Amino acid sequence: MIVNMAEGASEQQIQHVIERVQEAGYKAHVTRGTTRTIVAAVGSGRRHEIEALKAAPGVEDVVPIAQPFKLVSRQLKPARTVVNVGGVALGGPQLVVIAGPCSVESREQIFSTALAVKEAGASLLRGGAYKPRTSPYDFQGLGVEALKLLDEVRRHSGLPVVTEVMSTEDVDIICEHADMLQVGARNMQNFALLRRLAIIEKPILLKRGPSATVKEWLLAAEYLLSGGNSQVVLCERGIKTFETETRNTIDLAAVALARELSHLPVVADPSHGTGRPSLIAPISRAALALGADGIMVEVHPCPERALSDGPQSLDFEGFRRLMASLAEPLKAVRLPSPDPEVLGHSGRGNGVTLAGSDQA
Amino acid sequence: MIVNMAEGASEQQIQHVIERVQEAGYKAHVTRGTTRTIVAAVGSGRRHEIEALKAAPGVEDVVPIAQPFKLVSRQLKPARTVVNVGGVALGGPQLVVIAGPCSVESREQIFSTALAVKEAGASLLRGGAYKPRTSPYDFQGLGVEALKLLDEVRRHSGLPVVTEVMSTEDVDIICEHADMLQVGARNMQNFALLRRLAIIEKPILLKRGPSATVKEWLLAAEYLLSGGNSQVVLCERGIKTFETETRNTIDLAAVALARELSHLPVVADPSHGTGRPSLIAPISRAALALGADGIMVEVHPCPERALSDGPQSLDFEGFRRLMASLAEPLKAVRLPSPDPEVLGHSGRGNGVTLAGSDQA
Amino acid sequence: MIVNMAEGASEQQIQHVIERVQEAGYKAHVTRGTTRTIVAAVGSGRRHEIEALKAAPGVEDVVPIAQPFKLVSRQLKPARTVVNVGGVALGGPQLVVIAGPCSVESREQIFSTALAVKEAGASLLRGGAYKPRTSPYDFQGLGVEALKLLDEVRRHSGLPVVTEVMSTEDVDIICEHADMLQVGARNMQNFALLRRLAIIEKPILLKRGPSATVKEWLLAAEYLLSGGNSQVVLCERGIKTFETETRNTIDLAAVALARELSHLPVVADPSHGTGRPSLIAPISRAALALGADGIMVEVHPCPERALSDGPQSLDFEGFRRLMASLAEPLKAVRLPSPDPEVLGHSGRGNGVTLAGSDQA
Amino acid sequence: MIVNMAEGASEQQIQHVIERVQEAGYKAHVTRGTTRTIVAAVGSGRRHEIEALKAAPGVEDVVPIAQPFKLVSRQLKPARTVVNVGGVALGGPQLVVIAGPCSVESREQIFSTALAVKEAGASLLRGGAYKPRTSPYDFQGLGVEALKLLDEVRRHSGLPVVTEVMSTEDVDIICEHADMLQVGARNMQNFALLRRLAIIEKPILLKRGPSATVKEWLLAAEYLLSGGNSQVVLCERGIKTFETETRNTIDLAAVALARELSHLPVVADPSHGTGRPSLIAPISRAALALGADGIMVEVHPCPERALSDGPQSLDFEGFRRLMASLAEPLKAVRLPSPDPEVLGHSGRGNGVTLAGSDQA
Repeated sequence: MIVNMAEGASEQQIQHVIERVQEAGYKAHVTRGTTRTIVAAVGSGRRHEIEALKAAPGVEDVVPIAQPFKLVSRQLKPARTVVNVGGVALGGPQLVVIAGPCSVESREQIFSTALAVKEAGASLLRGGAYKPRTSPYDFQGLGVEALKLLDEVRRHSGLPVVTEVMSTEDVDIICEHADMLQVGARNMQNFALLRRLAIIEKPILLKRGPSATVKEWLLAAEYLLSGGNSQVVLCERGIKTFETETRNTIDLAAVALARELSHLPVVADPSHGTGRPSLIAPISRAALALGADGIMVEVHPCPERALSDGPQSLDFEGFRRLMASLAEPLKAVRLPSPDPEVLGHSGRGNGVTLAGSDQA
Repeated sequence: MIVNMAEGASEQQIQHVIERVQEAGYKAHVTRGTTRTIVAAVGSGRRHEIEALKAAPGVEDVVPIAQPFKLVSRQLKPARTVVNVGGVALGGPQLVVIAGPCSVESREQIFSTALAVKEAGASLLRGGAYKPRTSPYDFQGLGVEALKLLDEVRRHSGLPVVTEVMSTEDVDIICEHADMLQVGARNMQNFALLRRLAIIEKPILLKRGPSATVKEWLLAAEYLLSGGNSQVVLCERGIKTFETETRNTIDLAAVALARELSHLPVVADPSHGTGRPSLIAPISRAALALGADGIMVEVHPCPERALSDGPQSLDFEGFRRLMASLAEPLKAVRLPSPDPEVLGHSGRGNGVTLAGSDQA
Repeated sequence: MIVNMAEGASEQQIQHVIERVQEAGYKAHVTRGTTRTIVAAVGSGRRHEIEALKAAPGVEDVVPIAQPFKLVSRQLKPARTVVNVGGVALGGPQLVVIAGPCSVESREQIFSTALAVKEAGASLLRGGAYKPRTSPYDFQGLGVEALKLLDEVRRHSGLPVVTEVMSTEDVDIICEHADMLQVGARNMQNFALLRRLAIIEKPILLKRGPSATVKEWLLAAEYLLSGGNSQVVLCERGIKTFETETRNTIDLAAVALARELSHLPVVADPSHGTGRPSLIAPISRAALALGADGIMVEVHPCPERALSDGPQSLDFEGFRRLMASLAEPLKAVRLPSPDPEVLGHSGRGNGVTLAGSDQA
Repeated sequence: MIVNMAEGASEQQIQHVIERVQEAGYKAHVTRGTTRTIVAAVGSGRRHEIEALKAAPGVEDVVPIAQPFKLVSRQLKPARTVVNVGGVALGGPQLVVIAGPCSVESREQIFSTALAVKEAGASLLRGGAYKPRTSPYDFQGLGVEALKLLDEVRRHSGLPVVTEVMSTEDVDIICEHADMLQVGARNMQNFALLRRLAIIEKPILLKRGPSATVKEWLLAAEYLLSGGNSQVVLCERGIKTFETETRNTIDLAAVALARELSHLPVVADPSHGTGRPSLIAPISRAALALGADGIMVEVHPCPERALSDGPQSLDFEGFRRLMASLAEPLKAVRLPSPDPEVLGHSGRGNGVTLAGSDQA
């Protein structure tokens, strides 16, 4: 942490900051420039006390110089994490496709979809039992009834099941029926929920919030890991920008960056990420090309009759075409490289010292 | 709802849409242009079935033409709602200042702050017991201990107390100790929490999410009203944009717009909205000038030692200066006008027919 | 400038950075932490050479610690600039209203509007001769014919005239006819145009770009001042965000912040800033309350027949009501204070050392 | 265009709109719902007169239902445009790599870079002579001297040259020396410049503005095509969002969408799009995987000594690795398909009727 004193800060103000830095457990290292002085907090101490110094007299700014996350970081754990979802490895050599309807609507709907997506090559089934809806007047999901259907269709199809959890109160019942619990974009910073999910033994799919930075997303994952659950998969599903032609702006650089900064698997959701069926195939190809560990796609027997998210869902034929166009990346086996990226400059990444690169 | 057919949509596709509109309970009214056809759904039916038609063959888009919220709307209830917070009227003729520390940190801190803000003219005390923090390593609040201190300081100071609720599980205990429950920006679309808060008898302060549109904010309030709790105050606290000089971009037009579209009281939070102490006074003056029902400001005995949000907090002297600069709007009594805005065009608002305006 | 070395940077990489900092004309001041080293560039040298070090091996980031603008800064020139626009003082004790149609459409239109806005209290007339339009098929302005009409109406009404310049080639002809040249939001970083306008003797109204930060806006003004033209007025007209209910999100904190960081006058444009006539009055009141030096409003004899921006224009009656609602702030005389803001903390602003404050 | 009347609009207000729609040259087609009436403007008339009706009494909104661009649209011209840049086909079966330094800095720098990027497989050389810089104190380019060097290096290397034009006054001199003129992101809506470039016979590389929607980008291209220049290549280079880890947020869905809506070639710029060298390779792979016609990459002999954009430039070795990792897509020959995308739903795209798809 660096405390950047304002131009014209008095000697007394500088001394005050130095004392506060020492009180907080750090050594203070002072650099006096021609017009400004900076005070670096060296060593390890109480970080928030340095942050709060932004409010001290004569201080212009406090600049952090280290990443705020630890357990999710690849600096701490260079080897990539592989998450086991009911027997399917997410983050390993094989890319994974998660598919299914936005909401579980009926036995017929979820059974026909499970069989169709399995036949086309999906490895995991998604389906919402509890739906976060912008309006209270929209379909809110079938709840426990949907969970039972998911359980049943899993046994029937053999596909492990991913479903969203919206409340701490539903955690136990969902754990009984599903293989992986999804934290939706709007709950990414529902910290009570994250703390509860940190102590269960099921893997978590953590969606990025629509206005969360990559760092905030990784810190939300840090809640899970620091609480005891290291089976976490990150999912980029688009952020909110001024663009209105697409439902969200899918940030594929965030997929690559999350894989650079963290050892956790990262998947992309082109259905929510674009909201346009015609963009799902190109964005899926792009996501897999840049190193995503998988994709998550909404599929419905009849999108125009879906109770939620129909306009962005593929029908069975559309999903088969998508899978055909992805045949090549999906059948490839990725090497167990510690770093699949091509380095920008000879001999260095962006702040990450890497042993080598087997792919460039 | 209008279904906008693509150019080149076939007669069969148009017929299909007409039938689906009728199936959904509406009359279909067809307009055939030179290159396009549109089908309007007239009457009342199942709205989501029309939305899903975006996925039907030959359909380019589905355009809603009515606002999606009802109970929060001023069209339904032109008279402004006044919310009673432990005896203080929010939304009435008197503007209200809510002040206090980000977090309750100690008995001394909360007692000294309560007395200082009361003396300077604040009507309500804020103070966090449960803190939503981006990093799991940051101070998470004192929990129940803080609630007890708030209860005590309320009895001592006479100031009703506002505190944040982060989880359905904490609702009961907070209701025992606080006068108003705050839903934080990151929980604005925590629908499980909203549904739980809809059935309590305490007023709610609903913060706008950092990437929520005004409509999404009003729909979050609609969850509370439609569930049975009509004691809701909206709070604008800044949205996330590309600007980095301020912590958030406070959207004061949203304050005016929320008051135009809804009868609920609206307050502004310049502390989170800007993150810069020097901007709190000008933004507070602006918010009150455009019709906000009050402001919420963070105050701490020693901002540079605060456990959270120190850099954006005012100290006691800073708060006294702020209140002095707001003396004029705060002592004014607003007329009980159904519409305090100056109309844009003679004889009309923006889609809202209004009886009159006493201020223009 | 601080060069923040990556964790694990080698001694050789650190030495390399130290040498490069010295080559660039600075002294290198090194701080070695437990896991990281930082190198501060002290003194004055070639700034861009330090910035480029972000690309050197072992460097994680380069952090600037001083503001990049000089001549526009209040640190350099604490006294506020007053800009003379054809005899009207902008930035002085009197708040200023600029009003008129988006485009000059006809003699009758511009004459009737000039007289109406003058009668209602406006001090300057706006009107576009050259129009930046998103589509090539939209009305592009009457060009020289409009300039002549503006010249004529100025002589007739006595109102000085502001009009937009879109190209270096039009600068001379516009200077012959107008009192102030406006740089539109989409040209804020048209540096060829800025350099040309820096050498004329007319004042400039510099609109903030829809995605420009406050710093970028001030640096655009720095082009004008450093080139020789110090008669610059800044105009906030809204930025692009995800919100769709308003045309843009007007950033009123940016108005206050620009006045804190710079000595130049700042006005707000609620017409473009909101795009909704019903929000023009509340946002105008707010802008004046927080210290804006004036407002700019679009007025048209018959908005529903305007060739551009009709939906956000006021008619004559609407403008009269607006001016009536602003009567109080407009008739007030501001004190010639070096700093009209209330300080956040006792004894300090945000990095700006201020002599005193007459308002707190 | 649909005029959506407000709830409670009077019969007189509806009649007025009907008359205005007819005056504007359209037929008025009225649909009366239970609470609202809509008036559709059918046929072809003066579009802006309908848009302006948003300002008429009793009107809530005016909703466009057709795309505003024509000549750039694939509906008008389904076959893809191939742009010839000094003999290199952009938009044809072969993917194209444009590489070179941000700025031309010296003869040695540009010659060594040209040879290095050519050897590694680039087809076009980029290099700035006139630089748009946020600060007036930054390096502004070598101007005509750089143009002469570009001309010389082109003859020497055989690589056609792309360089940025910032002002109408420089168009002639640049045309003498370069093969393609780039319109930078900040000039995307510099309409005077676009109109000037519409009448030259050189191809244009049109970068998307940092806050431009895809529609605004296509309308900027429409200025070029409607003015007479159909040799236009679109370039996505990232938009501004709240994310700060990357310099911009590269919007790869916009690349796919621009290719869906328009017949013009589209390239991606991962250097500006991310600002992080480590992300250039993954984003390049992604862009090519989703159908981009090429990529543009910044390369510098020694990024840490570059006069501009060093931190995001690759060195020669980094560029060779990038090209090696892209070997497969770059050597592939794309089929001359009218539509390379996999359709979302059986039998339809998003409002685009397509004959078939050879890739799914």
